[in-house]
Amino acid sequence: MTRILYQDCIDACLKCMEACNYSYVSNLKEYELARLRDCVLLERECADICGFAMEAMTRQSPFVADICRLCADICEATAEECSRHEQTHCLDCIESCRRCAELCREVSSLVTVLA
Amino acid sequence: MTRILYQDCIDACLKCMEACNYSYVSNLKEYELARLRDCVLLERECADICGFAMEAMTRQSPFVADICRLCADICEATAEECSRHEQTHCLDCIESCRRCAELCREVSSLVTVLA
Amino acid sequence: MTRILYQDCIDACLKCMEACNYSYVSNLKEYELARLRDCVLLERECADICGFAMEAMTRQSPFVADICRLCADICEATAEECSRHEQTHCLDCIESCRRCAELCREVSSLVTVLA
Amino acid sequence: MTRILYQDCIDACLKCMEACNYSYVSNLKEYELARLRDCVLLERECADICGFAMEAMTRQSPFVADICRLCADICEATAEECSRHEQTHCLDCIESCRRCAELCREVSSLVTVLA
Repeated sequence: MTRILYQDCIDACLKCMEACNYSYVSNLKEYELARLRDCVLLERECADICGFAMEAMTRQSPFVADICRLCADICEATAEECSRHEQTHCLDCIESCRRCAELCREVSSLVTVLA
Repeated sequence: MTRILYQDCIDACLKCMEACNYSYVSNLKEYELARLRDCVLLERECADICGFAMEAMTRQSPFVADICRLCADICEATAEECSRHEQTHCLDCIESCRRCAELCREVSSLVTVLA
Repeated sequence: MTRILYQDCIDACLKCMEACNYSYVSNLKEYELARLRDCVLLERECADICGFAMEAMTRQSPFVADICRLCADICEATAEECSRHEQTHCLDCIESCRRCAELCREVSSLVTVLA
Repeated sequence: MTRILYQDCIDACLKCMEACNYSYVSNLKEYELARLRDCVLLERECADICGFAMEAMTRQSPFVADICRLCADICEATAEECSRHEQTHCLDCIESCRRCAELCREVSSLVTVLA
């Protein structure tokens, strides 16, 4: 059951990690890099927690509720930072981060209720 | 271009991580756990390197060739260990591990040639 | 300043990761493995979040407060599980986990106050 | 025995992770950031593999030899990149990276011989 419960969230975490890490390396090639410092930093933070959350869900960690809540917080902070920039790769992160945050909160609530 | 190049391998790493971590927690619930020690250990090793390889590919790491070769080696060792058991979740790992190993070797060769 | 602030906690996370992972592999060799299922699982969870927290502190992550609070929760749950067993390696985890939890809570509070 | 064998290398990995991640965040604050792009990227790669190697050694992973060899390669590439810059935090990485590479190769050779 948990496998079905988590699958959409795992997929959203992967999409978010892909968008964030793609934007991270793209930012590091930008001429305007100096204005993208915080964005580089947050995108990499976001990719890291998405990876951690995915692994936690696939192993049905007893701490999934808390890990996914933390992931949602970091995704939202990253979406906010990305919305301050005009680069396409930054803008592409926003939706992936918000979708991931939404599904992480859903998983977190559901797991808490079911526990 | 690299995004397209890596996508199938990233997806195979996720499938392998899912199969291995599912089998890891399933093994820990098995009555026959004592015979599954090495399998528990290898499946978790495999899930870990798959996660690491996925993150490396999504950030276009300059070390993708070596990381994916290592991932392929660990996937193959895990497939071999899983083939010694009869539990469905172990058997389900075999194909995921082998497919992941195959695509990791492809990425590793391609990246080496392109470098 | 943050480097000094975090150093004790980073060291405690390493000690905790070492104790937990040592007990994890030791448990997997135990004759009584069947009674140690939850312990295997929690020790590995604990080692994972300790590694994640260490990396977050060394890169002065803006999310250190939340990551360390989560690490403290997982350390405490692991200490409780370990205290149900009599194996030396399990008992050795208890103090490492509690010390790590304590320092993680300190860092978490301090970072929240300073923010 | 393995615990003693690995301890110096684990400590060197931690020092290297600390130096690299400190330089990573310091680079992201530098006025000259545009000239430090590759350094930002490599230092973060290096911190990541050091974390992975530490966890592998603490759990006596059967793949320690290969993981430590990969870690040594990445440490050496990072040391080389850091030596192209004059920032103190970059220069501080060089020795940590080289020391870590050295001990990772030692562990890798020893484990291969003992296997």
